[in-house]
Amino acid sequence: MLRNYDLLSAEVNLVGVIKARAVVGRYLNRTNLTYYSELSRLAGCEVYVKHENHNPTGSFKIRGALNFFHHMSGEELENGILVATRGNHGLAMAWAGRWFNVPCTVVVPEHNNPEINRIVESFGAELIVHGHDFYDAQSYCDELVDSAGYYYVEQGNEPEILNGLGTMGLEIFEDLPDVDVVICPIGGGAGCASVIKVTQAVNPKVEVIGVQAERAAAFYESWKKGERVTIEGADTVADGLAARSVFQLPYVIMKDHITDVVLLSEAEILEGVRLALQTTHNLAETAGAAAIGAALKIKERLAGRNVVLIMSGGNLDHGHLLQALAE
Amino acid sequence: MLRNYDLLSAEVNLVGVIKARAVVGRYLNRTNLTYYSELSRLAGCEVYVKHENHNPTGSFKIRGALNFFHHMSGEELENGILVATRGNHGLAMAWAGRWFNVPCTVVVPEHNNPEINRIVESFGAELIVHGHDFYDAQSYCDELVDSAGYYYVEQGNEPEILNGLGTMGLEIFEDLPDVDVVICPIGGGAGCASVIKVTQAVNPKVEVIGVQAERAAAFYESWKKGERVTIEGADTVADGLAARSVFQLPYVIMKDHITDVVLLSEAEILEGVRLALQTTHNLAETAGAAAIGAALKIKERLAGRNVVLIMSGGNLDHGHLLQALAE
Repeated sequence: MLRNYDLLSAEVNLVGVIKARAVVGRYLNRTNLTYYSELSRLAGCEVYVKHENHNPTGSFKIRGALNFFHHMSGEELENGILVATRGNHGLAMAWAGRWFNVPCTVVVPEHNNPEINRIVESFGAELIVHGHDFYDAQSYCDELVDSAGYYYVEQGNEPEILNGLGTMGLEIFEDLPDVDVVICPIGGGAGCASVIKVTQAVNPKVEVIGVQAERAAAFYESWKKGERVTIEGADTVADGLAARSVFQLPYVIMKDHITDVVLLSEAEILEGVRLALQTTHNLAETAGAAAIGAALKIKERLAGRNVVLIMSGGNLDHGHLLQALAE
Repeated sequence: MLRNYDLLSAEVNLVGVIKARAVVGRYLNRTNLTYYSELSRLAGCEVYVKHENHNPTGSFKIRGALNFFHHMSGEELENGILVATRGNHGLAMAWAGRWFNVPCTVVVPEHNNPEINRIVESFGAELIVHGHDFYDAQSYCDELVDSAGYYYVEQGNEPEILNGLGTMGLEIFEDLPDVDVVICPIGGGAGCASVIKVTQAVNPKVEVIGVQAERAAAFYESWKKGERVTIEGADTVADGLAARSVFQLPYVIMKDHITDVVLLSEAEILEGVRLALQTTHNLAETAGAAAIGAALKIKERLAGRNVVLIMSGGNLDHGHLLQALAE
């Protein structure tokens, strides 16, 4: 089943996020918002890290997955769900699917991280390996939907996924009501859009600054042009940022309310991983460390302010870890 | 002020731990008990990691520090507290001291990790550098107590610190009531003893297995001999295990109820750090990864069982990280 998204961003709102919190709280502990003095010294502002990497499955996406399943009817899910992924989205849907007894089929491209593949299978999901890259895997999903009747989960365009992700924004306000700036990585855009929905409702003066890789600046290009564009390639060390386009629903939310977008070089992204290890003692994945890299890049603008860096995930593979440490 | 410990282990009990939970819960989020499929495959059992490394200050010790301050009178604390530390104990007391407005003086040896020192100071504590090693710093505390009237906190012998630490054991039973084995690192012994107090009260069939470094086997030697001994040196890569003796109160608790103690070589400890990175995507400090090393070493005994590994802390310095990855 392919849903006919009407993409009313009004479906994503603070009430939806507050409802989602009750759902998410049944399965997940709150994540810490931790102050780091050494990182604060380096960035010249008061740095708090929102530790989404501490979630089970290792990323923020689990919040959206749980809220999605909660809101779906038995009829919609009777043939199971289907996702295309390279990692965190698939892990989250498979993990949450177990709680809701919904069969999950996860399509990954060839040469995907075998460790991620094994974990997906350990959560009871069916793994299908298909195509050379994520976009091949995604196209194959269309065929499978037609033939097998799965519900295909296009993560960025599901309002209840965004409401679920918004719970991290709510927790930020509860732990640090005086937050001035939130810095959030942007891949498909769902996480950042969900945070913007919360800040706009609670305190629109809070700046939300996105982070993308220079080599995968799909949202940045779209935002500058005033319409959603698909870029040619997205060849960056940061898997979680490697999207050739941003989803429609997050785009609509972000375009008018995002304060700015910081673009990082590959070296700056890897520097973020290294700093995460040294100053927070956390293993962050490349996208998860991007907010740290961005904070250092724009430190003049942040001087003295209360800044939250969203460490979106921690699933860094061994090769990238060695690469970051070798720089 | 030096307290006259009567060392009645009866002061540490499940009621004390349940009371401590109400205290600790005001300041800390629960830590996750996360199942890891890849680690389970390697160890041949069902492996759950208790993520004490996710706590603010990066270790389990914060639980004890908070409960300690809660139970002390204003009179006892009027001159402030004094601790000797190389890291986690000092970080925890300084962090918790801020909440309770108690001035903390923290004595560290020369050549202590400068990053740890800076964080301690950032928490508002006064830092004193004295002596060649931890034991010099500790001796200096006796002089300071006499001259300045501080309350000296001998962490392992404070019953309310142990009750506070026991909250991690309580959380384990709530999240995994069918736990069979808990594997816990032993330095001074407070953490492991607190877990034993909880397992003995809730389900004495649960095995608690301690882990020490071969090169710092103070509890192991004491346990075998039937009396508390001080070993000559404690020269191990695992800072958190590098104790030349175990505290009296934990010794009394552990000696009759601990199931076994696993001794690890330096290489096995570093292998634990590497496996923590690869299979859990967490940076564990050397002591924090010791339970992983132990689980692999005794996998025959664990086969098929529900095993909780306590990742006691994550404050790994950069040098040790590189050392672990280079092996």
